[in-house]
Amino acid sequence: MNNWISGLDNANDEIVISSRVRLARNLKKVHFTNKLDENAGRENVDRIESAFYLNENTRDKFTTVRLWEIGGNVSTSYFEKHLISPNLLKSYKKTAFLVDKDETMSIMINEEDHIRLQCITKGFDIKEAYNEATKLDDMLENYLDYAFDERFGYLTACPTNIGTGMRASVMIHLPALTMNKEIDGLIKGLAQVGMTIRGLYGEGSNADSNIYQISNQVTLGVTEEEILNNLQAVVSQITAQEIKSREHLRANYEYEILDKIYRSIGILKNAIILSSKECLELLSYVRLGVEMSIIDDIDKKLLNSLLVLIQPASLQLKVDRKLTEKERDIERGKLVRETFRKINN
Amino acid sequence: MNNWISGLDNANDEIVISSRVRLARNLKKVHFTNKLDENAGRENVDRIESAFYLNENTRDKFTTVRLWEIGGNVSTSYFEKHLISPNLLKSYKKTAFLVDKDETMSIMINEEDHIRLQCITKGFDIKEAYNEATKLDDMLENYLDYAFDERFGYLTACPTNIGTGMRASVMIHLPALTMNKEIDGLIKGLAQVGMTIRGLYGEGSNADSNIYQISNQVTLGVTEEEILNNLQAVVSQITAQEIKSREHLRANYEYEILDKIYRSIGILKNAIILSSKECLELLSYVRLGVEMSIIDDIDKKLLNSLLVLIQPASLQLKVDRKLTEKERDIERGKLVRETFRKINN
Repeated sequence: MNNWISGLDNANDEIVISSRVRLARNLKKVHFTNKLDENAGRENVDRIESAFYLNENTRDKFTTVRLWEIGGNVSTSYFEKHLISPNLLKSYKKTAFLVDKDETMSIMINEEDHIRLQCITKGFDIKEAYNEATKLDDMLENYLDYAFDERFGYLTACPTNIGTGMRASVMIHLPALTMNKEIDGLIKGLAQVGMTIRGLYGEGSNADSNIYQISNQVTLGVTEEEILNNLQAVVSQITAQEIKSREHLRANYEYEILDKIYRSIGILKNAIILSSKECLELLSYVRLGVEMSIIDDIDKKLLNSLLVLIQPASLQLKVDRKLTEKERDIERGKLVRETFRKINN
Repeated sequence: MNNWISGLDNANDEIVISSRVRLARNLKKVHFTNKLDENAGRENVDRIESAFYLNENTRDKFTTVRLWEIGGNVSTSYFEKHLISPNLLKSYKKTAFLVDKDETMSIMINEEDHIRLQCITKGFDIKEAYNEATKLDDMLENYLDYAFDERFGYLTACPTNIGTGMRASVMIHLPALTMNKEIDGLIKGLAQVGMTIRGLYGEGSNADSNIYQISNQVTLGVTEEEILNNLQAVVSQITAQEIKSREHLRANYEYEILDKIYRSIGILKNAIILSSKECLELLSYVRLGVEMSIIDDIDKKLLNSLLVLIQPASLQLKVDRKLTEKERDIERGKLVRETFRKINN
């Protein structure tokens, strides 16, 4: 797998930024997470951690982070890297996660389910993410007793996850479909085929970045194979639509698009105050410029890293103190300015 | 005198960009301009031109431009440099002007009055402009018979110019007073003391550039000395108000002001499509940055020249063809981008 932020750019990360598979698992004979108090929760962390580290390979590759032992900015910055969920943060007194050194695999403990195992890789490669997740899952199953029902499959805290316990998703950049408003129809259409589309940071987060997460909604009564194939097919189709819209833009609004892209670079290089919303919009135009081969001296690795680094916790971590919204806008401006000025274009 | 566009920047061009004096004169025994047909008008051009060139000094320093002999873009570009008026352009079949090589002095022939003589110099120096205008006027009076009445003074086509026939004006940059809306009260106050305030290109032009022209309105019953002193006093007071407002901005909105200034530079360096309105606004912020010593690698000479070069006729003259509005916005973007990218900041 290839870290979606720092891994080398490659051909399959055009439009699709990353692919992710997560599996929800629970232990037999242990109450669901919401019934575990702080002590029982921490016991469960120890239980899963020690099972996991029974395997020598994983012991060298992974580290454990106990959320109650670290500061809020540190843990939230893992969320901003898409390695852990808001739910894990919320219950930080009894939650933990294991993460590999490459930051492509993570195992959340005491999220909604006891185990939420996820693999995330750069670009459009859901099967790779699935294969790695399965390997990890199989390994864990050697040491732990999963709650599994012959008829229903994996049992989960929320019925929407019962069955495969799998959610597969991609992070996808759709500026052209957003500009021409086709995105609204797309969202409706996806719901009808059992898929869901959300913003950069999941439910409730907005799409200022023109980056969306598309994932399967249904887990019961379908096989892993079907989920992966469906998502693959839908994402391929959306990608083709986006490319078509970009070609239309290029053919009919060439100067306007160039204007948007270059102005964005100009502002990112110079702004003193930069809100998250504006910054994400500008970064999206620059990304579009790179993806349309209009800009050739900026790599997407840099744009991916900025998606994370401009987030509140990452900014606060950088300066090592709590910031007001205005201070964040100023720090964000500084970070982005310095980053873009290093590029000679 | 010092050309307001290309002359070296100096201490007195802080806030006041240029100072101008124009004198309106008419010849005895010749009908007012509006009564002159094409032939009679051109005869009058020859009459005034030959009188003017009787003096050897002027013959070497000035050239004559007959508006009916040149293209519209060429003549309009002189208007954009503030050397001639829209009225002169309108009656181009019978109008002409004399202009010195430095482009600080011009004599319009067959404008509203037979002679409109003007001197324009960089910065806040109305008396210098007046002295030079008077010298030229005295010289011309040796060779021509002016329409003059002992009681009323110089007779002019429009009664508002009777008396001294003089209008003194300054071009002044008031971004802070515009931002905090004090400009509206200022406009009303000026009217009460017989002054008038207009946009960069006179009556009806807007103030996107935050540059205004302030001039005397009353010419009858006041001496030249009084006009000059009044204008000088009023402009000094407005300048002080503007400086105070800038200090207030710096003390209370430092980041916001820096943000505006640097973003403006970023956009000017990168925009592909640039409307006149936006361009003037951005140039005003950069000028403010220079005047507040925030920006030190851009000189105002460059900003002054852009004020003119981004105007429609100057742009069309540069590419030597008529441009649609969209084409102008693209050419303007290109010109400004290339100009700003040469500056290393």
